[in-house]
Amino acid sequence: MNRVSIAGATGYTGIELLRLLVRHPTVRIVSLTAESHVGQNIADVAPSLAGYLDHTLVALDPSIGEECDILFLALPHTASMAHVPELLQRGCRIIDLSADYRLHDSRVYNTWYKTEHQNPELLKEAVYGLPELHREAIGPARLVANPGCYPTGVILATAPLIQTGWGDVGSLVADCKSGVSGAGRKLTTGTQFCEANEGVSAYGLGEHRHTPEIEQELSRLAAQDVSLSFSPHLMPMTRGLLSTVYMDLKQDIDRDRLHAHYEAFYEKEPFVRVLPPGRYANTHYVAGSNFCDIGVQVDTRNRRAIVTSAIDNLMKGASSQAVQNMNRMLGLEETAGLDTPPLFP
Amino acid sequence: MNRVSIAGATGYTGIELLRLLVRHPTVRIVSLTAESHVGQNIADVAPSLAGYLDHTLVALDPSIGEECDILFLALPHTASMAHVPELLQRGCRIIDLSADYRLHDSRVYNTWYKTEHQNPELLKEAVYGLPELHREAIGPARLVANPGCYPTGVILATAPLIQTGWGDVGSLVADCKSGVSGAGRKLTTGTQFCEANEGVSAYGLGEHRHTPEIEQELSRLAAQDVSLSFSPHLMPMTRGLLSTVYMDLKQDIDRDRLHAHYEAFYEKEPFVRVLPPGRYANTHYVAGSNFCDIGVQVDTRNRRAIVTSAIDNLMKGASSQAVQNMNRMLGLEETAGLDTPPLFP
Amino acid sequence: MNRVSIAGATGYTGIELLRLLVRHPTVRIVSLTAESHVGQNIADVAPSLAGYLDHTLVALDPSIGEECDILFLALPHTASMAHVPELLQRGCRIIDLSADYRLHDSRVYNTWYKTEHQNPELLKEAVYGLPELHREAIGPARLVANPGCYPTGVILATAPLIQTGWGDVGSLVADCKSGVSGAGRKLTTGTQFCEANEGVSAYGLGEHRHTPEIEQELSRLAAQDVSLSFSPHLMPMTRGLLSTVYMDLKQDIDRDRLHAHYEAFYEKEPFVRVLPPGRYANTHYVAGSNFCDIGVQVDTRNRRAIVTSAIDNLMKGASSQAVQNMNRMLGLEETAGLDTPPLFP
Amino acid sequence: MNRVSIAGATGYTGIELLRLLVRHPTVRIVSLTAESHVGQNIADVAPSLAGYLDHTLVALDPSIGEECDILFLALPHTASMAHVPELLQRGCRIIDLSADYRLHDSRVYNTWYKTEHQNPELLKEAVYGLPELHREAIGPARLVANPGCYPTGVILATAPLIQTGWGDVGSLVADCKSGVSGAGRKLTTGTQFCEANEGVSAYGLGEHRHTPEIEQELSRLAAQDVSLSFSPHLMPMTRGLLSTVYMDLKQDIDRDRLHAHYEAFYEKEPFVRVLPPGRYANTHYVAGSNFCDIGVQVDTRNRRAIVTSAIDNLMKGASSQAVQNMNRMLGLEETAGLDTPPLFP
Repeated sequence: MNRVSIAGATGYTGIELLRLLVRHPTVRIVSLTAESHVGQNIADVAPSLAGYLDHTLVALDPSIGEECDILFLALPHTASMAHVPELLQRGCRIIDLSADYRLHDSRVYNTWYKTEHQNPELLKEAVYGLPELHREAIGPARLVANPGCYPTGVILATAPLIQTGWGDVGSLVADCKSGVSGAGRKLTTGTQFCEANEGVSAYGLGEHRHTPEIEQELSRLAAQDVSLSFSPHLMPMTRGLLSTVYMDLKQDIDRDRLHAHYEAFYEKEPFVRVLPPGRYANTHYVAGSNFCDIGVQVDTRNRRAIVTSAIDNLMKGASSQAVQNMNRMLGLEETAGLDTPPLFP
Repeated sequence: MNRVSIAGATGYTGIELLRLLVRHPTVRIVSLTAESHVGQNIADVAPSLAGYLDHTLVALDPSIGEECDILFLALPHTASMAHVPELLQRGCRIIDLSADYRLHDSRVYNTWYKTEHQNPELLKEAVYGLPELHREAIGPARLVANPGCYPTGVILATAPLIQTGWGDVGSLVADCKSGVSGAGRKLTTGTQFCEANEGVSAYGLGEHRHTPEIEQELSRLAAQDVSLSFSPHLMPMTRGLLSTVYMDLKQDIDRDRLHAHYEAFYEKEPFVRVLPPGRYANTHYVAGSNFCDIGVQVDTRNRRAIVTSAIDNLMKGASSQAVQNMNRMLGLEETAGLDTPPLFP
Repeated sequence: MNRVSIAGATGYTGIELLRLLVRHPTVRIVSLTAESHVGQNIADVAPSLAGYLDHTLVALDPSIGEECDILFLALPHTASMAHVPELLQRGCRIIDLSADYRLHDSRVYNTWYKTEHQNPELLKEAVYGLPELHREAIGPARLVANPGCYPTGVILATAPLIQTGWGDVGSLVADCKSGVSGAGRKLTTGTQFCEANEGVSAYGLGEHRHTPEIEQELSRLAAQDVSLSFSPHLMPMTRGLLSTVYMDLKQDIDRDRLHAHYEAFYEKEPFVRVLPPGRYANTHYVAGSNFCDIGVQVDTRNRRAIVTSAIDNLMKGASSQAVQNMNRMLGLEETAGLDTPPLFP
Repeated sequence: MNRVSIAGATGYTGIELLRLLVRHPTVRIVSLTAESHVGQNIADVAPSLAGYLDHTLVALDPSIGEECDILFLALPHTASMAHVPELLQRGCRIIDLSADYRLHDSRVYNTWYKTEHQNPELLKEAVYGLPELHREAIGPARLVANPGCYPTGVILATAPLIQTGWGDVGSLVADCKSGVSGAGRKLTTGTQFCEANEGVSAYGLGEHRHTPEIEQELSRLAAQDVSLSFSPHLMPMTRGLLSTVYMDLKQDIDRDRLHAHYEAFYEKEPFVRVLPPGRYANTHYVAGSNFCDIGVQVDTRNRRAIVTSAIDNLMKGASSQAVQNMNRMLGLEETAGLDTPPLFP
């Protein structure tokens, strides 16, 4: 059995990791940390897991790096980089769900996160954990930076199109709609039920921190600098992330040709489903699963491609993608423990 | 007192009209039609209105055009144009909430609605009932075509920007997010609670029938042909419509300049609220009211304007806008009966 | 114009009071207090009200009692009684939305609220502000204790039945289902969107502080001690409170007889709607209004009356009931400013 | 591999069965019927299952009884009994999710379902498929009647208490709160999003067809006739069923004693979780799982037991309970394929 631990086990991504790991065929859960619940039983903080786990929550101490093979860090941004170097020294491999190691260039990190990166040398080593793009590098990695939810949805929607060169990279717009769980479990006014319910709102237009992560990966694919307008919106639902990506086409490409290209691009991917022509993505059909559903359209009147993708932000956008990465790092079948169909309705 | 009647009184826009009209200071409700509920009391079909109305629902007969000053038609598309000519002959003035008289060019109607318009000559006479753009023409009109919910939100968000000439009209994208009530009260699988709840989805990308209506009005403002990509999305909430409009700028305009222009453009409008710089539209803050809230941003990295607008699709997107039109047609204060603040939370 | 002020203007009941008062025909709003937002504009904290109010929020100071005729206290329990005596001395009349003056017996207060009441003598003077039961006393009152949301729903559902003597008072059970806004605007884990959404739960069974308030009023009506089991539940919706009350019958009473009694009991009430036989209460049909809808049934197999009532917890359960009380205190029409039908859908 | 088929595969319980069966370790899915979708691919009607199944939907024909070991009937009430006798003759064993074989006495069926039972002799043979009460009989059964969602929640909440004899059986009240999916996938006005959202309502008070099923099972446990008031309510959420059961106690029993009894009663049950003292059931913590969570309280002031239970109405209330029954019938581990923790949030 592979020994795994989670730092930050009582947030939504931590609980979701646990839901997946307790039924993973080759994993044993060792330590669970949660600074604000030290000494409590995990089932008291996450009653959904009662009967599966009996762990007492502990404080994060570097020694937990010695007792596990894989350590998941489900900590806030900037909290991760304070711990990672020492934890790696203790011998574990790390899957970091924060943003701290996703950007290769520390100057970009410093600019968008408005703080100095503490170990920029590790940014070179860290692997961006999107298996569809970096499958081979993830396997042997010591430090995997698990992508953000928005970048996962936008990159998977855009990568095949970027690759073709059919589009004008200067015209990229990603309009994203996220469920409230994307904001985490911390208390804020905007995520109170009565504020978020029955309301749809925009936030962080053109300024959201997930932007450089998307641009880094699309630039690599395009082999040129890609810059996009990224617009996050908050939706009155718990889970789900729909991305609608717009890109002007430099030539006439019809929907069926675009569709065929997407099907070919993702042909061997176990967790990307390209929808039949004429169907668009719906978050409801991926809830609770590791799938990314993609639907394509061409607005021929305006010669513009419109690509929609749907993921569960806590799953493919966070925890199940982390398990997919773990599977590769441990040399397991990539789908191990992730074979549950979406929950519908 | 002004005599008003409603054809199609038991759909959501009909019920919403009644909610407004029963407390309107100068209106008396005469007849209510509903083909599938003839003989029933309105309060049995709309229990929220019990105590306010005691009307028996009747079938739509041309004679109702003789008994009222203003007739609201809350009928499905194509059903309206079968009745309008004769109803007008009977002497009433009409506010049509369907799409049948919104387009001036019958060929455009025929193309997008896939049916032949039955009285194209009336398309010339009908006034597009968006008071912010056609205030003067609405007053004396005999036939007002009440705008669709999406066009209302998109046009109000875009009109000030189009007017400046700062933007590239070929780059317009409108990404819209609507509550489920926009689909009306008819039974469909997609609008069942368990299908729509906890799901966000795209539909009709680049093909939705509200497109030509938006293009007609923006082209008039731009004094050139405007074509846009319009993308509707369905949200898991009852009311509300958020529009996010993207337009490339031909020159560097900063957010504050754009904001100042919007404030000036809407300075005298009683129902448009331009939000302070840095704030974006949220449907929750306009629910149950006739307001359109607008928030602006410029993505300076990509020299692109991003404008958000929020309306209640059943109110400014349908019924309260119809009452605003009625007020003008009857020479009343434009805000009469519409002075209720939004319902929050 | 009557001068009114609100202490605690930025909570949900405060905002709801403002929504009603800005369009009340004879009221002028003087001061708004909010300890945590001193110096901010009310529209920044409650954007729904932008355009209606331009007040700067101030701290609660006794002097505000001199500048208004009616002062609404929308403060937490125990905070009210720290201020009320001095505020009364300054000359205003008070409608207190907290629980501090609802119970006539300070020992009962001390037991259920686990704190010593600071001015028990005022408990004798305070009038319980349920107009359906205490209409005459409310008019001249200096201090009105606005009922809790649960007591309003349960008492209105039960009063007619209690009055008959047909039921066994020892068998009373009230099973209540409340929207999340009943918990107020303070940040708690349980009221976060992702925790409350898609969940129904029970809390405080047999121990909730609203219990003695219900028992006090029902005991008065029954002219004997009434004790009940009161079970609150939390629902995944913003507004609304459904109460289902069970009472064993001592004799065979059929539904129609029970229904006729309820209709007679509430015949002259402007805000209680007894539903037709065979229909039960639905919170959706009272949202945003001051109505209480009541539906009755008799389970003849078990000789048990089942009465359902629906209110909007922020309206008849709090703010619009407070305005109804204000109207009486000011000698106005009881329905002034409360004539808006429910918002449906 | 065990061959299984589903009649009625495209309703919510059918889709939920498929979600469980596609990852069940020892099952192969043979035929899927759906009268209104004959010839379509299951993934077109249930897009969540795309990638897992490629079956074409067929009409229900008796021959499907020859090709499978276990046949799940997810058909409407009265449709099942038209098919069961012939299907059994063809050799399969049946798990019927309708109400047709749950009542042993055909006269009770005829009264509550207002139709004549077509094969009353099979009522004697059918086993009521609640494993916690009928584990042994289910194993060898040829026809298992899967319990209704309400009866599952109410019986599991009440059985331990009934068994003690501490309560007054004449005082039983079950107040139940169900998610909308309990009404199935058929189109009705009341289950449209805009009607059900933001509304809580009562229906069928004292008259719901699940009543006799509950009484049958509780009477058997009590060894005397048990009659109860059963009150269903509709909640604005997709999944979940909370039951609050009230029973007068004939003697003073405190909460801890009641709790200890419940823990002992369910000690060996893999799918019943008795919550710690002071905690009540919450549907959110069982969503997507086969668990029934139970929390107990005693209202000592009124000497009344209050027991809450939470299930997912589509899982323990329907499909996963059916799989639990299948596991027993096939001699498998009872938890096979049901080991997924609840989905939270």
